[in-house]
Amino acid sequence: MDTLRQVVNFGPGPAKLPRSVLLEVQKELLDYKGLGISVLEMSHRSPDFAKIIKTTESLVRELLNIPDNYKVIFLQGGGSGQFSAIPLNLIGLKEARCADYVVTGAWSAKAAEEARKFATVNIVHPKLERYTKIPDPNTWNLNPDASYVYYCANETVHGVEFNFVPDVKGAVLVCDMSSNFLSKPVDVSKFGVIFAGAQKNIGSAGVTVVIVREDLLGFALKECPSVLDYKVQAGNNSLYNTPPCFSIYVMGLVLEWIKNNGGATAMEELSLIKSKMIYDIIDESQGFYVSVGGIRASLYNAVTTEDVQKLAAFMKTFMETYQL
Amino acid sequence: MDTLRQVVNFGPGPAKLPRSVLLEVQKELLDYKGLGISVLEMSHRSPDFAKIIKTTESLVRELLNIPDNYKVIFLQGGGSGQFSAIPLNLIGLKEARCADYVVTGAWSAKAAEEARKFATVNIVHPKLERYTKIPDPNTWNLNPDASYVYYCANETVHGVEFNFVPDVKGAVLVCDMSSNFLSKPVDVSKFGVIFAGAQKNIGSAGVTVVIVREDLLGFALKECPSVLDYKVQAGNNSLYNTPPCFSIYVMGLVLEWIKNNGGATAMEELSLIKSKMIYDIIDESQGFYVSVGGIRASLYNAVTTEDVQKLAAFMKTFMETYQL
Repeated sequence: MDTLRQVVNFGPGPAKLPRSVLLEVQKELLDYKGLGISVLEMSHRSPDFAKIIKTTESLVRELLNIPDNYKVIFLQGGGSGQFSAIPLNLIGLKEARCADYVVTGAWSAKAAEEARKFATVNIVHPKLERYTKIPDPNTWNLNPDASYVYYCANETVHGVEFNFVPDVKGAVLVCDMSSNFLSKPVDVSKFGVIFAGAQKNIGSAGVTVVIVREDLLGFALKECPSVLDYKVQAGNNSLYNTPPCFSIYVMGLVLEWIKNNGGATAMEELSLIKSKMIYDIIDESQGFYVSVGGIRASLYNAVTTEDVQKLAAFMKTFMETYQL
Repeated sequence: MDTLRQVVNFGPGPAKLPRSVLLEVQKELLDYKGLGISVLEMSHRSPDFAKIIKTTESLVRELLNIPDNYKVIFLQGGGSGQFSAIPLNLIGLKEARCADYVVTGAWSAKAAEEARKFATVNIVHPKLERYTKIPDPNTWNLNPDASYVYYCANETVHGVEFNFVPDVKGAVLVCDMSSNFLSKPVDVSKFGVIFAGAQKNIGSAGVTVVIVREDLLGFALKECPSVLDYKVQAGNNSLYNTPPCFSIYVMGLVLEWIKNNGGATAMEELSLIKSKMIYDIIDESQGFYVSVGGIRASLYNAVTTEDVQKLAAFMKTFMETYQL
């Protein structure tokens, strides 16, 4: 079934899903691969769901070339849940119970705030007046006693994206990649923990991917809820409790779509093409499109160049109509 | 699209969904009510999703006749997440940081174990050798300094269900109703907190309903992750962070189905008819079907009498074939 009215969705997350994925979800909604039941009603302990979650994990590993000494787990609670889970699982790595935070936007600010419940938080740079750039890493005041260094790879609210992985001199590096996960290749071996909510680039809301280096497991505070305990969840292959089965299934389909469309490298190439289409208009607008914060358009993986073409055309027409 | 092979699903959860709900989900999967996008890709901040979550909340309230001084929130993390959230939110009600637990099966045992991370746990009865009955409430050793009294209304693993609400002399009563939520009417006013994972009687995995009396909000421990903090989530109408949108949408459809099928009272009548069909065979089997723990069949709301008829017929044939 196709629709007459198809909206072009630049939402910041939950965001657009590939059409082929939605069609597949729809097709097998009543009868998953001839099993006679829906994934929505499938036991998380069944061999069929075991295959779904295993395939999904394998795809994450393959697409990011994740080394064997990392666990990949699927948790509930979103990125905000990880703002608590990170200190709960890692602050115990060192006695000082201190954590270094790089705060380049609303999300890392929120993460640092949540971490204060469990840790002494050290913001490694002077407080920023505005979130428009990354403070020079050479000036970062890293605390050698910190259990980890935290940053957000892409701040969606204010738009600051890291185009490099910070060199933290061997410290445990933690990264929130919620909004640019699998939009480009990344060297996972540089990180202690990477996490990402699925609802932007790799699926629908309700599941968060956590990639964690094995030697960091087992340091959770006593107060860590079991559902957020990386060691507990990794030890149970994300099945300590009933996982968000359907969200994991949808994620698996999106990852397969990414793979079939050339993987992380191809997603990066497409991202660059798409964002250039918009930034060219902004740069050439002689100040018309300079004001920050007016409108946000997210160009996640599932947003096509045709979608962006429509936005670009609209921006041109709008500017021609309203330019003084 | 109908299927040739339709399995009869007595799974303990995730469990069977009403066929009409699955058909509706399938029908509007690509285009929710003419909006041109799927619920899977809909912003949780959109007016359209606001309507979905508001309708779902209204249905919970209506079906259980919930008094106005209770909040209804939708959280991630499942029942197991609530095993932590309950003490994290409520243990601060009294200085002693003690909680009373009734342990009648695997789930309440797990909840009590998790609570030990945050509280002194008082099991109100002598340890049970086997989980086959409820210790006489008159013998319960309730601690007057306890912040709350906890029990599980229906223990799915061993099969012990409360057919009464315990009188706890004004203490804050907390109940895990995951497996019999909305399978019968309940007087919510007797409880401080009721919670239930959706994947048994009211939807798919990924969302948990929490019904909490307003005067119990605001006592969370400092260590409570914000995503599990009842006051934070209630204050944001369950939108503190991105909620599990699709699971909430499916729950809304199931609640509508329950309403259209006569509500909680009708669900109870059906449950009694369905379980009688099976227990009659067990009781008349002269011991053939007496061994506990061999096979589990869950007769949740969406399981029809026709489904149960098939199981009953199978049990009769099986007994006739294998009886010595």
